[in-house]
Amino acid sequence: MKFQALLEEIYNEVQPLFGQGQVADYIPALGKVDPRKFGISIQTVNGQSFETGDANEKFSIQSISKVFNLAMAIRIVDEQLWERVGVEPSGNPFNSLVQLEHERGIPRNPFINSGAQVVIDILLEHLDNPNEEMLSFVKKLRYEDVYYNDAVFQSEKEYGYTNQALVNFMKAHKNIMHPVDTVLDVYYHQCSIEMSCHGLAKSFLFLANNGIIPDTGERILTKSQTKRVNALMLTCGFYDQAGMFAYHVGLPGKSGVGGGIVAVIPEELSIAVWSPELNTYGNSVIGMKVLELLTTRTGKSVF
Amino acid sequence: MKFQALLEEIYNEVQPLFGQGQVADYIPALGKVDPRKFGISIQTVNGQSFETGDANEKFSIQSISKVFNLAMAIRIVDEQLWERVGVEPSGNPFNSLVQLEHERGIPRNPFINSGAQVVIDILLEHLDNPNEEMLSFVKKLRYEDVYYNDAVFQSEKEYGYTNQALVNFMKAHKNIMHPVDTVLDVYYHQCSIEMSCHGLAKSFLFLANNGIIPDTGERILTKSQTKRVNALMLTCGFYDQAGMFAYHVGLPGKSGVGGGIVAVIPEELSIAVWSPELNTYGNSVIGMKVLELLTTRTGKSVF
Amino acid sequence: MKFQALLEEIYNEVQPLFGQGQVADYIPALGKVDPRKFGISIQTVNGQSFETGDANEKFSIQSISKVFNLAMAIRIVDEQLWERVGVEPSGNPFNSLVQLEHERGIPRNPFINSGAQVVIDILLEHLDNPNEEMLSFVKKLRYEDVYYNDAVFQSEKEYGYTNQALVNFMKAHKNIMHPVDTVLDVYYHQCSIEMSCHGLAKSFLFLANNGIIPDTGERILTKSQTKRVNALMLTCGFYDQAGMFAYHVGLPGKSGVGGGIVAVIPEELSIAVWSPELNTYGNSVIGMKVLELLTTRTGKSVF
Amino acid sequence: MKFQALLEEIYNEVQPLFGQGQVADYIPALGKVDPRKFGISIQTVNGQSFETGDANEKFSIQSISKVFNLAMAIRIVDEQLWERVGVEPSGNPFNSLVQLEHERGIPRNPFINSGAQVVIDILLEHLDNPNEEMLSFVKKLRYEDVYYNDAVFQSEKEYGYTNQALVNFMKAHKNIMHPVDTVLDVYYHQCSIEMSCHGLAKSFLFLANNGIIPDTGERILTKSQTKRVNALMLTCGFYDQAGMFAYHVGLPGKSGVGGGIVAVIPEELSIAVWSPELNTYGNSVIGMKVLELLTTRTGKSVF
Repeated sequence: MKFQALLEEIYNEVQPLFGQGQVADYIPALGKVDPRKFGISIQTVNGQSFETGDANEKFSIQSISKVFNLAMAIRIVDEQLWERVGVEPSGNPFNSLVQLEHERGIPRNPFINSGAQVVIDILLEHLDNPNEEMLSFVKKLRYEDVYYNDAVFQSEKEYGYTNQALVNFMKAHKNIMHPVDTVLDVYYHQCSIEMSCHGLAKSFLFLANNGIIPDTGERILTKSQTKRVNALMLTCGFYDQAGMFAYHVGLPGKSGVGGGIVAVIPEELSIAVWSPELNTYGNSVIGMKVLELLTTRTGKSVF
Repeated sequence: MKFQALLEEIYNEVQPLFGQGQVADYIPALGKVDPRKFGISIQTVNGQSFETGDANEKFSIQSISKVFNLAMAIRIVDEQLWERVGVEPSGNPFNSLVQLEHERGIPRNPFINSGAQVVIDILLEHLDNPNEEMLSFVKKLRYEDVYYNDAVFQSEKEYGYTNQALVNFMKAHKNIMHPVDTVLDVYYHQCSIEMSCHGLAKSFLFLANNGIIPDTGERILTKSQTKRVNALMLTCGFYDQAGMFAYHVGLPGKSGVGGGIVAVIPEELSIAVWSPELNTYGNSVIGMKVLELLTTRTGKSVF
Repeated sequence: MKFQALLEEIYNEVQPLFGQGQVADYIPALGKVDPRKFGISIQTVNGQSFETGDANEKFSIQSISKVFNLAMAIRIVDEQLWERVGVEPSGNPFNSLVQLEHERGIPRNPFINSGAQVVIDILLEHLDNPNEEMLSFVKKLRYEDVYYNDAVFQSEKEYGYTNQALVNFMKAHKNIMHPVDTVLDVYYHQCSIEMSCHGLAKSFLFLANNGIIPDTGERILTKSQTKRVNALMLTCGFYDQAGMFAYHVGLPGKSGVGGGIVAVIPEELSIAVWSPELNTYGNSVIGMKVLELLTTRTGKSVF
Repeated sequence: MKFQALLEEIYNEVQPLFGQGQVADYIPALGKVDPRKFGISIQTVNGQSFETGDANEKFSIQSISKVFNLAMAIRIVDEQLWERVGVEPSGNPFNSLVQLEHERGIPRNPFINSGAQVVIDILLEHLDNPNEEMLSFVKKLRYEDVYYNDAVFQSEKEYGYTNQALVNFMKAHKNIMHPVDTVLDVYYHQCSIEMSCHGLAKSFLFLANNGIIPDTGERILTKSQTKRVNALMLTCGFYDQAGMFAYHVGLPGKSGVGGGIVAVIPEELSIAVWSPELNTYGNSVIGMKVLELLTTRTGKSVF
């Protein structure tokens, strides 16, 4: 019960931080969320579960879906992926066009928008119905209650000018093979996935377990592939605040502008936090703090 | 006859330069042009005409149309224009996104692609049918034989990923008010305008005549507006080779990737040259040289 | 007397602009100047002189000296100069390192700091005593009362970290041949030159007269070289406000952070204005306005 | 003996890679090293040692010294350090000025040149003789045979134009408090430190042991500080190839242009490899491969 008590302690400790961040409002559908929502879920590789707050309420996972996206692509094309997207931290905001121009249409890594769009373009070569297969993939990871939020999808599409710019620009550089609208349809769908902290922690557990789903024993990625996805999350999972997260938390993880963050402690557990107020880098203020306190209190980190 | 003899002399002198540049091939419709085409037309404010070579053959004027575009907008909104587009040289390629990102969606000047697109967005507020009005405007400038080339228009549209990226990006920064496709339809139409050297020199003559069409006496721009359009052509008319053109030629002018260049000597004449082979900056190799020789031999330039 | 009356009119009209800019204070020696100083001097190629205000008071000409510098280098190495410095507007502040890095140590043009430093490095190959020769050169241009201000020189040197950075960076890129300190000694000396509006207008007159000093008939530059220096002043003479100056004033000119601006109307006159309050681009607020009013009222500009 | 056999195996396996990289030659003193030198040393927290090849030959550790530098500063000012230097990967070469300009003189992290120079500037406030204290610090880490190579020091100083540019530029932005030459003297000294693989592995062992020197039990950093230095090495330790190293190797580490790389497996061991031939990012070709094979074969990494 150590974790449960610690969770409660941290849950209470961060309460004063409410109000320090801002709910994402670049699309109306996201702006309506209650800023006081707050949940934590920990799932361990040996089957324990520790949760508190709104851990079972669904929210928009946004960029966290880029990890599912990447895992699906690695299963299909493995290292070939890196011919069209890099593995380096970007040092720029997630939607920057500058670097893309300097690097002639090759995105820095699969966790910035342009990188995820290239990954989708690759998936489109191999999947007949990527939108359905994405949901099936998450369900296979032992979480049934996953779906696309149509209002968010429509809102992403309606206000998606920057993403339109990114995909068109890569198309001009011949790093997108499918029609721009086809790529963006999948992209906006992924951004609109809704899951709970419980669901996210559950579905990320294979990354804490060398690539195997603990419940079923099914292997999703090889041990080596798993380590590499974790490495990418650590170096690139938090936009241009990745170094800060590595420094203060020291875990591989991924954040989304819906206010969710998922992280893993290899061979131990996965943890998802949700609190919608974001800092200026687009990461959950309270989510970051919860994870920092957790690793500091437990002394656990990959370092 | 001085000019006619000089034109012939220069015409012969630059013949060895054929083969040094490359015909634009970013869209198939442009790549088919005969690289040996070469025409020059000079029109003076007092009604003389000096021409040689393919001076009456039509070609794709491409970015030269941005000057018509600008003149139309200045007639309508005058200085208000500069709230949404700058007047500074860009120091970057005509289709660069980098600067646009640094400057939050405000294009550097009206002669780079993004700048012309904002000017179109402004025209769309005031014109019911901008595509027709553009042709009418050129016809008013005393050149009837002007039309859109549909193959070029379609080709621009089909391969217009970079322009899609630019307009979407400015839309994301709220510097485009109309639908992206509406703006691009006008933009691609303008790029596809076909005119001859004769027609270009004719239609630019008002810029050499303080804003008045010499033939008809109709005022198109005030004297002050005319000087300002000329200033913009001098500082921004040749992509990131504007300084080089000012240095070697010393005239206000505008080039297009179809291989055309138009320039004016204030209170004297306008001159159009066409030769499709481009240097790496997108300017006609032979066109640049013709104008350099002309100003050097005559001692005429604005300086 | 037309000009004299116009000068007085404009002189009075701009009085309300005092207080809108800021005196340069990056070095203490400059910050001490009286912000209300204000002088204008016009010198015509046929020997007339029109002046008002503090036209005969000396001030720090700062970057205006880059024009003398360039003229001296063109006399010695002519076109060879352009192997080591460009002729394009920079689109960046005068002391930017960014562009220099992208372009591997080749400055954009001779009127940004790094460009002037390369020009000095070239002069050092040909002159035994560049500091003395600079003063002699200005004196030859018919203005005796020119000297280095030692306090300004020392102040430039003491706070010259950015210039140190620029020259070292170019040295790393092998575009500086002489010791860094030797180049900077000449550079800081030039920045510290003191002249009056009268002196500046007098010494720039050869640029309005096709390269010949009107008084003496001595040729300083060829007609073609003169046109090219004027072209460079028009496209690059006002830091990243060059387009604005071309647009509003339409004359070749050069400004300095001491608050001076000199401009020429080819084949007519030169004009110098001094008012120490600068806009955010480092150009004199009142100086810019005086020149805009002058060209607008007289209808004179190169366009 | 498992490690010893594995070391020999890898040692033989990478032999074909000789000749693929280039010895650093930006200073003459480094260019003279024999490109076939190759050593590996592993030191475990429980006192075992596994070595092969030139593991006891000294070489220029160059940027690896930035880790000692950082550890010393953290001991003195701890978190205050981050007011003047960041913790984010740079995404740019180690000697880039571009980012420094965008970020107004605050270096991205302490492992790029400018970052290390700021760290030195901070140390200068607290240490009377930083050059001596640096050697003492390494000796305390249980490696006596450490010294400055004067030829390398002189060579760094003679050709240090880029570093001169960096420090001057930060001085202009008021992020360097001491004289430029004082900072650079310490900086060049650190770059010239010579140690062997044995020495490096030995002296990094505290980073694998939660901050405590295993031999003596002396605490150098707190557990939390140690984790943070490791996090920084993982995200920023390999210039703009940090993501690649995390992806392929998955260990915190630091490289130098002398061809050395040191890495740690927390709570287990430290490892140093030396092979002077570098890839285009400035990292040892064979060093990178050795570490990739080692983590792949043993399944050990932080992920």
